[in-house]
Amino acid sequence: MTAQDQPLTLSGERFSAVYQLGGTHTATQAQQRALDICLEQTVEFPHHLIPSAAIRDQIVGEVAALEPLGADRWEAVIRYPVEVAGRELTQLVNCLFGNISIKPGIRLTRFDLGESLGALYRGPRFGQAGLRALLGIQDRPIVCTAIKPMGLNPRELADLAYRLALGGIDLIKDDHGLTDQRFCPFDERVQRCTAAVERANRETGGRARYLPNVTAPATEIGRRARLAQNCDAGGLLFCPGLAGLDAMRALADDDALALPILSHPAFQGSFTLHPDGGLTHGVLYGQLNRLAGADATIFPSYGGRFAFTAPECRDIVDAATGPMAGFPSIFPVPAGGMGIARVPELIRFYGRDCCLLIGGDLHAQGADLVANCRGFLAAVRKASEE
Amino acid sequence: MTAQDQPLTLSGERFSAVYQLGGTHTATQAQQRALDICLEQTVEFPHHLIPSAAIRDQIVGEVAALEPLGADRWEAVIRYPVEVAGRELTQLVNCLFGNISIKPGIRLTRFDLGESLGALYRGPRFGQAGLRALLGIQDRPIVCTAIKPMGLNPRELADLAYRLALGGIDLIKDDHGLTDQRFCPFDERVQRCTAAVERANRETGGRARYLPNVTAPATEIGRRARLAQNCDAGGLLFCPGLAGLDAMRALADDDALALPILSHPAFQGSFTLHPDGGLTHGVLYGQLNRLAGADATIFPSYGGRFAFTAPECRDIVDAATGPMAGFPSIFPVPAGGMGIARVPELIRFYGRDCCLLIGGDLHAQGADLVANCRGFLAAVRKASEE
Repeated sequence: MTAQDQPLTLSGERFSAVYQLGGTHTATQAQQRALDICLEQTVEFPHHLIPSAAIRDQIVGEVAALEPLGADRWEAVIRYPVEVAGRELTQLVNCLFGNISIKPGIRLTRFDLGESLGALYRGPRFGQAGLRALLGIQDRPIVCTAIKPMGLNPRELADLAYRLALGGIDLIKDDHGLTDQRFCPFDERVQRCTAAVERANRETGGRARYLPNVTAPATEIGRRARLAQNCDAGGLLFCPGLAGLDAMRALADDDALALPILSHPAFQGSFTLHPDGGLTHGVLYGQLNRLAGADATIFPSYGGRFAFTAPECRDIVDAATGPMAGFPSIFPVPAGGMGIARVPELIRFYGRDCCLLIGGDLHAQGADLVANCRGFLAAVRKASEE
Repeated sequence: MTAQDQPLTLSGERFSAVYQLGGTHTATQAQQRALDICLEQTVEFPHHLIPSAAIRDQIVGEVAALEPLGADRWEAVIRYPVEVAGRELTQLVNCLFGNISIKPGIRLTRFDLGESLGALYRGPRFGQAGLRALLGIQDRPIVCTAIKPMGLNPRELADLAYRLALGGIDLIKDDHGLTDQRFCPFDERVQRCTAAVERANRETGGRARYLPNVTAPATEIGRRARLAQNCDAGGLLFCPGLAGLDAMRALADDDALALPILSHPAFQGSFTLHPDGGLTHGVLYGQLNRLAGADATIFPSYGGRFAFTAPECRDIVDAATGPMAGFPSIFPVPAGGMGIARVPELIRFYGRDCCLLIGGDLHAQGADLVANCRGFLAAVRKASEE
């Protein structure tokens, strides 16, 4: 039977999205704006022109709740039919925030897939528990750094990776600007860096992992990820803002790869910039990354080179670790100008179930990079015992 | 010779990006913020720790100009080495606006690839001239609409497409929320709609084209595009904000497809929302779409359901049609609540070299959709002669 023969009989199941409506003063305004979202995100058609009651009743979003949040702000909970989101992440995101991303004053603050829609997504393959098991670390935050700066050649970067692994860093990632430049080709870099980290592991008995950056053209991501796997890389770094959220999901879902994924926030800053529009930090860096299979989510922590506040960072932690469609918790990875001196404070704020990413400051501690890494790790161990 | 053996000897060629720096009062502040961008977007490393003069001189961005724009705003022109952007769109975008998207007060207002970097990108395959040739229309704006609302089955949508083509609409696109829902499967919809538009063309002698939406999971985009082509679809609709800008480029560059591409702005609204951050309308909807191979760019026009201003729309037109790396001009497609009554005014503003997209209002003119389309076309013809 083809779709043409079937009357529109959807399941009646719905998933929900919560929006803040800025610049909204009265209940009437709020109701009108919420109804507008219900139409815009589904039929994108004037209500009175919808050609059938079946479409009006079964396709259009519905306002489940509407509450004032202050003088000029309301919160709307809108429920969409699960079938509208189809069975694909691209359309799910479109339904949550496609066209209304362009309308001022609407901010998506969280979403809840419910059971049947959540079951369509695998989520993180490893999550916190899986990544801890791979690393053999249960009792402290994971420590992470990047090989940098851009301009070093693969041999020099491999030497860096070796010393970082020797110093005890758990996750050694490519700087996210390292892709496949002529002065630092992907294939050679990955071969050299994986070999260097393996050599260090043999010497230390450790389990450091190197994560190459597979953010790449659409037709090239798969090849780079397979090359990384063939080299026994320890995971993948990926920038969903540059190469697509669903491309990350495809990597995470690939049973032939089965590598942990560290998500990087490049090019995503605009989504959280306007307080009355876009996405909350929790939705962007927590929920969407988790839905798309990241095992750890890098974000610029409060108190660094960027401008997120402590509550915004807390929102990310909550979304990365709170209940969501049965998915495992993933690691929050506060970064962006963190320093070793701040380790105790960072662990007080983020707890032990985080991954601390320190870049430049590891190099600023003195000429002996191995010693600097050991200092970082010692600081993490000490603060974790307190 | 492997990269390890080579000293860092880049070409010295650079490409440029122009940023507005908000909340910046003094020349000293402006200089500091511009230098910060130079580091953040390349080495992401403190300047004094950069391990060699070669990297400092050849990799780090350089400030080419710095001018005040008003009391608290400066414009910085920054030049990056072409090799930093590599040979891939994902890294080019990362270099232009990756990490600094997360820093408040930085807005990318335009970029210029220069000759050697521009030559790495094919840009639009058809552009305005190519699409006009396919349609056989030289003297008036192209007219476009969407099949909608979601909830209709493929047979009903095909019937709509037939009537729209019969009424003289040039480009008949899927509503961007139509993907591959069970109630409207992609394959059946595309087969029926292409057949319906062909039937109408045989009756009218016209050249209407149906453009299915191939916004899809990363692993599925290629299959849907090939199916569209096998059905003789007239082009592709794609949402780069949902499925990735480079995924659009891959479609545009695919010689085996060779179909015109209409870009849709879903999920991209946050990029332009904050006046002191993100991307200008011209960069987002004009330059980036053109660079990634769109032949026409849909955006919400001033005076519709959304909130773009006339100058913002002018910025898109300029970026879609002005000189850029030798790429052909592409069609601006003002949309988002346009009505037939506004056709003369829209043509006065956008000129004849645009594509007018009217959705719901075509259905609001009366029960006879074919007559409504003819009315739309007549209004466009009349206003084009004035």
